[in-house]
Amino acid sequence: MKTQPEFRPATSSDHDALWAIIHEVISGGDTYVFDPQTPRDQMLAYWCGPDKHTYVATLDGRIVGTFMLKDNQPGLGSHVANAGYMVASDAGGRGIGQAMCAFSLEEARRLGYRSMQFNIVVSTNERAVRLWRKMGFEIIGEIPEAFRHRNLGLVSAYVMYRKL
Amino acid sequence: MKTQPEFRPATSSDHDALWAIIHEVISGGDTYVFDPQTPRDQMLAYWCGPDKHTYVATLDGRIVGTFMLKDNQPGLGSHVANAGYMVASDAGGRGIGQAMCAFSLEEARRLGYRSMQFNIVVSTNERAVRLWRKMGFEIIGEIPEAFRHRNLGLVSAYVMYRKL
Repeated sequence: MKTQPEFRPATSSDHDALWAIIHEVISGGDTYVFDPQTPRDQMLAYWCGPDKHTYVATLDGRIVGTFMLKDNQPGLGSHVANAGYMVASDAGGRGIGQAMCAFSLEEARRLGYRSMQFNIVVSTNERAVRLWRKMGFEIIGEIPEAFRHRNLGLVSAYVMYRKL
Repeated sequence: MKTQPEFRPATSSDHDALWAIIHEVISGGDTYVFDPQTPRDQMLAYWCGPDKHTYVATLDGRIVGTFMLKDNQPGLGSHVANAGYMVASDAGGRGIGQAMCAFSLEEARRLGYRSMQFNIVVSTNERAVRLWRKMGFEIIGEIPEAFRHRNLGLVSAYVMYRKL
């Protein structure tokens, strides 16, 4: 059995698997800004939109995660990448998020980006904050009451950043 | 002669006047991230998009400025507003930017937003930074090399924020 995930660009034939992961993640209402009720078509149109580079992570051929890279800003800010990562809950704890992030940093360099910025890392998502720090990201700002957490109400969010 | 600007929602009949202002502002390549070469249709589709509240400022019936309000994030972050402001260069120095900002804060409250965030205030745009501070915004983060300034190369940008 392989223990390392593999990565490839997502295709339209991956949409069922992507939606299973995305729906599960956003349903939590505790880590991503997308409304937990966002319809499948709207969410896939966003995650796989023409302005994104969308990937899947596979483990033994099964899709266990997905991530996307995009310009964080248009035009004169387009050298800064933005990214989002999601892992299937039943594949958690195996380092897939970390492996996706490491691969995405290489991929972002290859695509010509100079840095990467996360705009809204929910401050109570300690696992994510710890992982991004481990991957070289710094907290460069904290936005008060930026996120309506399903259980905790309004919580702050971090802007995180690293050079590539 | 009136000395105070008036505000109203923009309509499609304002597009020529809006484009004159927007084109002039983005052509500078020193304050906004939009590519200075962005075509008219693309820029108006953005500035007047269905996800925006777009306004014009008039002085003696002439359009001298424009601003837009929108959700800074979808879903669970949609209680934070984002805004952009542009003033015709030949109407500068008359407090139109400040009056637009003051009106936009009221309008954002009326629309139900709880706070307002600017994501990429170019650090070398001292006039804007001074004005936003005067209007109650704080710098809550600085993004290194976030903006490719036409004359200065890569310069940092601020994330600015205030409650409503």
